[in-house]
Amino acid sequence: MSLHADSDQVSVLSVEDCWSCLRSTDIGCLAVVIDDRPDIFPVNYAVDHSSIIFRSGEGTKVDAVLENPRVAFEVDGIEPESGTAWSIVVKGRAEPITATDDLLDTMSLDIFPWQSGKKNRFIRIIAEVVTGRSFQVADSLLWDSSLSNAVRAPKE
Amino acid sequence: MSLHADSDQVSVLSVEDCWSCLRSTDIGCLAVVIDDRPDIFPVNYAVDHSSIIFRSGEGTKVDAVLENPRVAFEVDGIEPESGTAWSIVVKGRAEPITATDDLLDTMSLDIFPWQSGKKNRFIRIIAEVVTGRSFQVADSLLWDSSLSNAVRAPKE
Repeated sequence: MSLHADSDQVSVLSVEDCWSCLRSTDIGCLAVVIDDRPDIFPVNYAVDHSSIIFRSGEGTKVDAVLENPRVAFEVDGIEPESGTAWSIVVKGRAEPITATDDLLDTMSLDIFPWQSGKKNRFIRIIAEVVTGRSFQVADSLLWDSSLSNAVRAPKE
Repeated sequence: MSLHADSDQVSVLSVEDCWSCLRSTDIGCLAVVIDDRPDIFPVNYAVDHSSIIFRSGEGTKVDAVLENPRVAFEVDGIEPESGTAWSIVVKGRAEPITATDDLLDTMSLDIFPWQSGKKNRFIRIIAEVVTGRSFQVADSLLWDSSLSNAVRAPKE
């Protein structure tokens, strides 16, 4: 991963590195605006080209993005070998996936459902701005895993 | 932890259980509205009575909550013994901590900085609505740790 140094020991990640980080895990936080107020949801996602796809049941989350498609999405993680933490933020426009071909392509993505309720809607976030940064963890503790690493560990 | 069952294997947590979950970890996601669009930031936090306190340097995050104090805050985690995942969302009003006594009290809280840059501002989120849910992980894999558990593990 190529980093270029910023102030305060924070490194700004290239867009390419941001996508690498996004592809390395599968749980993120989705922020939306509902009635001029922020709301936030954890979502399982997959990267499809330059977009983020997540599954959802009907409800507040889907209603929110249909009404106000501007969203922000955050994912973070740790590289345990180096003690480097990273955080990626994607800002963009969310839209439901409805066309049959697109939906069939999407079904083949490995979007692991964090919970087992009905998740019949697929939403695509078309990325407009992708930013990321990385930094050494302040305590110099080497965190031995992240949530998403723990999820994937048994599959490796 | 007392749960009462909901549909789709999701359990709604009592407010008391939500605060227990919030106290059990120290990294969350803050969602704010800037120019009618959502933005999102990872933050280290501590619980102080019925509020969430986080530190921040000057910048977008602080500017955002000063301009539009309505925020949403999400924290999630796993109970490894039971394979139960939980997610808590706090909605409320953010305000900077400025009064000397309050600031001195706050300084004694263990707000671990995720990165080591200057974090001179303390912000309090006064909780207005706290909701939480828990559910068995769909894959029945027992995730052995969460990010925040990994952070705290060496201190235990």
